Amino acid sequence: MTRLRLGMVGGGEGAFIGAVHRMAAALDGDWQLVAGAFSTDASRNERTGESLGLDSQRVYPSLDTMIAREQAVSADQRIDAVAIVTPNYLHAPMAIAALNAGFHVFCEKPMAMSVTEAEAIAKAARASGQRFALAFTYSGYPLIEEARVRIARGDLGKIRLVQVEYLQGWLSLPIDTDGNKQAEWRTDPARAGIGGCLGDIGTHAFQLAEHVSGLRVQSVSADVATHVPGRRLDDDVSALLRFAGGARGTLKASQVAAGEENGLKLRIHGERGGLEWAQMEPNTLMLRWLDRPTEIVRAGGPGLHDGATALLRTPAGHPEGYIEAFANLYRAFAAAIRGSNDRSFPGVVDGLRTMRFIEAVIENAGSDKKWTMIDSGENA
Amino acid sequence: MTRLRLGMVGGGEGAFIGAVHRMAAALDGDWQLVAGAFSTDASRNERTGESLGLDSQRVYPSLDTMIAREQAVSADQRIDAVAIVTPNYLHAPMAIAALNAGFHVFCEKPMAMSVTEAEAIAKAARASGQRFALAFTYSGYPLIEEARVRIARGDLGKIRLVQVEYLQGWLSLPIDTDGNKQAEWRTDPARAGIGGCLGDIGTHAFQLAEHVSGLRVQSVSADVATHVPGRRLDDDVSALLRFAGGARGTLKASQVAAGEENGLKLRIHGERGGLEWAQMEPNTLMLRWLDRPTEIVRAGGPGLHDGATALLRTPAGHPEGYIEAFANLYRAFAAAIRGSNDRSFPGVVDGLRTMRFIEAVIENAGSDKKWTMIDSGENA
Amino acid sequence: MTRLRLGMVGGGEGAFIGAVHRMAAALDGDWQLVAGAFSTDASRNERTGESLGLDSQRVYPSLDTMIAREQAVSADQRIDAVAIVTPNYLHAPMAIAALNAGFHVFCEKPMAMSVTEAEAIAKAARASGQRFALAFTYSGYPLIEEARVRIARGDLGKIRLVQVEYLQGWLSLPIDTDGNKQAEWRTDPARAGIGGCLGDIGTHAFQLAEHVSGLRVQSVSADVATHVPGRRLDDDVSALLRFAGGARGTLKASQVAAGEENGLKLRIHGERGGLEWAQMEPNTLMLRWLDRPTEIVRAGGPGLHDGATALLRTPAGHPEGYIEAFANLYRAFAAAIRGSNDRSFPGVVDGLRTMRFIEAVIENAGSDKKWTMIDSGENA
Amino acid sequence: MTRLRLGMVGGGEGAFIGAVHRMAAALDGDWQLVAGAFSTDASRNERTGESLGLDSQRVYPSLDTMIAREQAVSADQRIDAVAIVTPNYLHAPMAIAALNAGFHVFCEKPMAMSVTEAEAIAKAARASGQRFALAFTYSGYPLIEEARVRIARGDLGKIRLVQVEYLQGWLSLPIDTDGNKQAEWRTDPARAGIGGCLGDIGTHAFQLAEHVSGLRVQSVSADVATHVPGRRLDDDVSALLRFAGGARGTLKASQVAAGEENGLKLRIHGERGGLEWAQMEPNTLMLRWLDRPTEIVRAGGPGLHDGATALLRTPAGHPEGYIEAFANLYRAFAAAIRGSNDRSFPGVVDGLRTMRFIEAVIENAGSDKKWTMIDSGENA
Repeated sequence: MTRLRLGMVGGGEGAFIGAVHRMAAALDGDWQLVAGAFSTDASRNERTGESLGLDSQRVYPSLDTMIAREQAVSADQRIDAVAIVTPNYLHAPMAIAALNAGFHVFCEKPMAMSVTEAEAIAKAARASGQRFALAFTYSGYPLIEEARVRIARGDLGKIRLVQVEYLQGWLSLPIDTDGNKQAEWRTDPARAGIGGCLGDIGTHAFQLAEHVSGLRVQSVSADVATHVPGRRLDDDVSALLRFAGGARGTLKASQVAAGEENGLKLRIHGERGGLEWAQMEPNTLMLRWLDRPTEIVRAGGPGLHDGATALLRTPAGHPEGYIEAFANLYRAFAAAIRGSNDRSFPGVVDGLRTMRFIEAVIENAGSDKKWTMIDSGENA
Repeated sequence: MTRLRLGMVGGGEGAFIGAVHRMAAALDGDWQLVAGAFSTDASRNERTGESLGLDSQRVYPSLDTMIAREQAVSADQRIDAVAIVTPNYLHAPMAIAALNAGFHVFCEKPMAMSVTEAEAIAKAARASGQRFALAFTYSGYPLIEEARVRIARGDLGKIRLVQVEYLQGWLSLPIDTDGNKQAEWRTDPARAGIGGCLGDIGTHAFQLAEHVSGLRVQSVSADVATHVPGRRLDDDVSALLRFAGGARGTLKASQVAAGEENGLKLRIHGERGGLEWAQMEPNTLMLRWLDRPTEIVRAGGPGLHDGATALLRTPAGHPEGYIEAFANLYRAFAAAIRGSNDRSFPGVVDGLRTMRFIEAVIENAGSDKKWTMIDSGENA
Repeated sequence: MTRLRLGMVGGGEGAFIGAVHRMAAALDGDWQLVAGAFSTDASRNERTGESLGLDSQRVYPSLDTMIAREQAVSADQRIDAVAIVTPNYLHAPMAIAALNAGFHVFCEKPMAMSVTEAEAIAKAARASGQRFALAFTYSGYPLIEEARVRIARGDLGKIRLVQVEYLQGWLSLPIDTDGNKQAEWRTDPARAGIGGCLGDIGTHAFQLAEHVSGLRVQSVSADVATHVPGRRLDDDVSALLRFAGGARGTLKASQVAAGEENGLKLRIHGERGGLEWAQMEPNTLMLRWLDRPTEIVRAGGPGLHDGATALLRTPAGHPEGYIEAFANLYRAFAAAIRGSNDRSFPGVVDGLRTMRFIEAVIENAGSDKKWTMIDSGENA
Repeated sequence: MTRLRLGMVGGGEGAFIGAVHRMAAALDGDWQLVAGAFSTDASRNERTGESLGLDSQRVYPSLDTMIAREQAVSADQRIDAVAIVTPNYLHAPMAIAALNAGFHVFCEKPMAMSVTEAEAIAKAARASGQRFALAFTYSGYPLIEEARVRIARGDLGKIRLVQVEYLQGWLSLPIDTDGNKQAEWRTDPARAGIGGCLGDIGTHAFQLAEHVSGLRVQSVSADVATHVPGRRLDDDVSALLRFAGGARGTLKASQVAAGEENGLKLRIHGERGGLEWAQMEPNTLMLRWLDRPTEIVRAGGPGLHDGATALLRTPAGHPEGYIEAFANLYRAFAAAIRGSNDRSFPGVVDGLRTMRFIEAVIENAGSDKKWTMIDSGENA
């Protein structure tokens, strides 16, 4: 089976998430990175391509050049997809350009700067017939799939409570004005959008809550804070959620929870029991029950359904982690491009929902009213 | 040192919390139970007194009789204090009667049915000069004291985030209409007050958050739900909190989190680090830091300040639990009666704050406005 | 129900274990401490009695005096039992004297200085018809009882592996020559016996392993070390165990595992699954299975058998700990004295087995042979 | 930077460890799989090559053919190294053939069937000047490197105790006679050698204990059992260890610990503190101290030394696991081939030590003597 060919925009040396995309794409042998426009700094771009062993002819100064030149390459060598790993403000124009040029797109989250932009991507994806994947990485964990399926098949009964939190501490100090590139653009409205912590990790929390519960948030009541003086975007978000069907939820995201690492945690309770999953111990799913002892469902262990097992590469007790979860998205993305529908991955719908969530939170937090509706997105 | 003498109202055989009070009072040898009005059912009252080895002359049909008769007992035999372990609606009349009669009072929480009632107790306590303790048991844990002191002395820097949650699952089914006495009165507005889950455990969460953080909640935005059909009071509460000084908080309390036991958990983050304490593993306090590894401060282990060590009875690694925490309150209550001010215990102020919190939550949850102020309680 | 009356020998102010015995005896209201010979230092003895609120007439200079005087007290006031909380070398003479005088005995472990002494106690207990309890406290935990019953009824299938460990670090430094009283006598062969760490905590590990597994150790191969220079007894023990029926085991006990608190942990695996219990989180029993997810059986939670539930005082999620476990032994001891056989407690058989274990380990560790048999103790 | 080229022998479709080697080699882009002799079954061999996208000309029927043909390939296309992922009995002949032919070798553990065979590999490696890596995967975890360095620099003081255990349950039933290929060869002396569980996972435990402690085991006292009737090799090992310098150790390895997954755990205590690492939560290293709170050192978190940080690919809180640890070995192996000495990897010395350990355990377990020396291996 020949590998699919990937071109990457962004992700020059020193960037975090570009390297993760490359490892995730490489892990299972579905993808080969063959082209890139890694940096607008020509020498950094060149160095990155070289260190990755790319043909220098396919290290491009920009996405536009990549698109133009790759369209001229013979079909059996041409890139199949573009990975977009740039700051948020470039997602929409780049995704639309790549889709319109006939390339599939694997894009970093959040989808765009606004619902309007996100809808434009959605439209381009529909029109072009190309696949659009969004890096809601946490959906790729096997035990998230286990959790999703168990709720969908009714193990917990009707869902009553959804609690999701995502706690980081890395923005506790004003490093955004102190030369930290990652912090800099994430706290700059022109590059990140209207949400800071909200857009960066609040979106992950929201997407995971809806993805696993299978429920849609109807309305939100939110408090948004900027704890570090001088910071231009929020660094801390709290929200009450009301789901269609009556479930109640809370969402907490913070990047000033000093000492926390990457604490994404989801708890969902239904009539008969509850489940708990924490990203930092991703191979464990706790199932609590009204009438029998708590169970620990483990990656590779007994009780896992086939769909979750299929997302694993090793036997029980051999920890798989973040890169493997990410690789599961790239694998599903490849399978879809090859025509299989066996595995889903986050895409247009997840992206639109999270953009609507961002806008609803910001609107509500700035108002005196208790609840703000989240558009159901029928027209997505 | 002679023991202080305790009379108990409520807590007949089969009741949960009365037995806990008795064990807590007995543990350290400060108290001796010598009198009781355990039940309005005469034979149950008698049997309880007998099983506890009480002199049958001091097993009374009612608090009023207890008060009248004990006042006639010689001072060196008379009860020093009354423990009130009845449903909420009896707290205020009983506490006021006992205080006015010259007895100290150790009362179950919540303090009363309303702020108005609570203020009447406060007034009686002031007027009588008697001590009034409230069973906010969780304040009695040694590592809660450690947490409180560390925040007070600034270890974490300025506090930014307070997250408190209290998850139980025991009311997931409609057991309140199925003969469960504990559930029955707790879901009956006439006996429990305007808050169900809110009054029963939301108050614990609120008190603990304020007690440890040393901060006061200024305003609250809340969502209150009743998930079990037919239930007359809330069984699930979510709230956003704004603290004086700028800290933001979340409070979650639920009695329909199916499969959860008694999951009270507090997390507080400041500029430099955060702490985490969970009631179900109470001998551990996690301290997370921006710039150094997370520390596990342990009951009896290195790093504990003297005030916390004084609340322990055994060396490190010998678990102490709920009854010991409760006993710490009885010990502090006894010390105060004997004239020492070394140890504090929850009382009038904590009680009034929580009653104001209950009323603010219910008001906010029933309105369209985002925030409801909590009275600062200057007149407490 | 009137309380049983307890006299205590040892346990003067400052001692650790005497205070624990007093709290454990007080907790459930079965016992009342009415007499004591707390210290050979007359003023310390007096102060202890006074602080405990004892009648000064019943604070005796020695056990012998206590025995003589109490025998003269009227039967309805006389002590029922003697708690012996002295260093090891006094256990046998004191226990025998008390038993022979017609008092029940609750004795600290290890039972005695040698198998010979232990057999003499056993003989006195038989001859006197009095009850003899040994403070193998860990047997009193509810989830130890749950584990024992589950193995006895075959949940795990035939037992193959038993792993027990008890790690402490408090003797990592030479505090025994530095004024620490607890360390001093425990490392003195004249007061502690031939085992240091072995006798102090190795015995707990051994007793728990046999108690829960229901199996008897037939032979042992051991390595015994003294890591701290100048120390006169072992501070570290490792042993391989062979059980009757074919199970294999390991036992590790150390008091120089620097940084460890009181790490007693038991793991037992059978054909179909395994269980794990750790004293520092005593309310949890992990059950692992070949063919289904691991279960967490919790104190007060679903799945507990009645015998374990009966050892609890509070609902699930309210931690009970070391003192409560100890109190369960005092409660069972009281019940037995009152004629009930419902609850067992560790006694003569456990004591003799552990003394035989001590002697076998010391013999084996000093020899070149692989295995040393442990006498089956038929004549116990 | 061009990739190194890898040929693989063994690892046909369905095999576990071959796929792990391929993912580990791919992850960081250092290696490209270009040739293979995956199976002696021709069609399985072909299918495996095809599914991996290999040129069919480089899918060979045997290692010998691979060697012969690759030697004829131009140097810039020829494989640099051979990965040997066959059952144990083929390790020595294959490794020696590949080394002698001028290829580097990355071999599965245990190194060989005997010390004699292992010495022959060692000799071939020395003579050929080629690199020889052994898949002691657990050495590749970042926090194992952290632990090793902390002990080497004396953080814990002189080491006193080493406890290592490796518990699996997958051989609890007689699956070796029931068609399970993995179980079949591992319990067949002709293919696995004289150790079953001992060779398969006991070697991992032993290697990790020596690697991290920096100490050498001098003598061993062991008990070896076969719990499943009819099984031809051991499935359970217990050993006492004596280290040069006076430290004492225990080693436990079992494949019949029903319900356990892949429970490799290492604890080492010195004069001032202890550390604990468990493979199933590999991103955490617990550091316990005599005089200050326990610290949790985390992958990517504060306190990590640079050598451990260099083994990570993601920020703190993004779990890395088994495949990443494995990839660290492939990365170090590549670096060594390219001439760097920055990173070490397990090789000849580790292999010889573990083979000597296997032989010492089997000898001791079959004898009546207490201790068996492990050859110091000066001639390695």
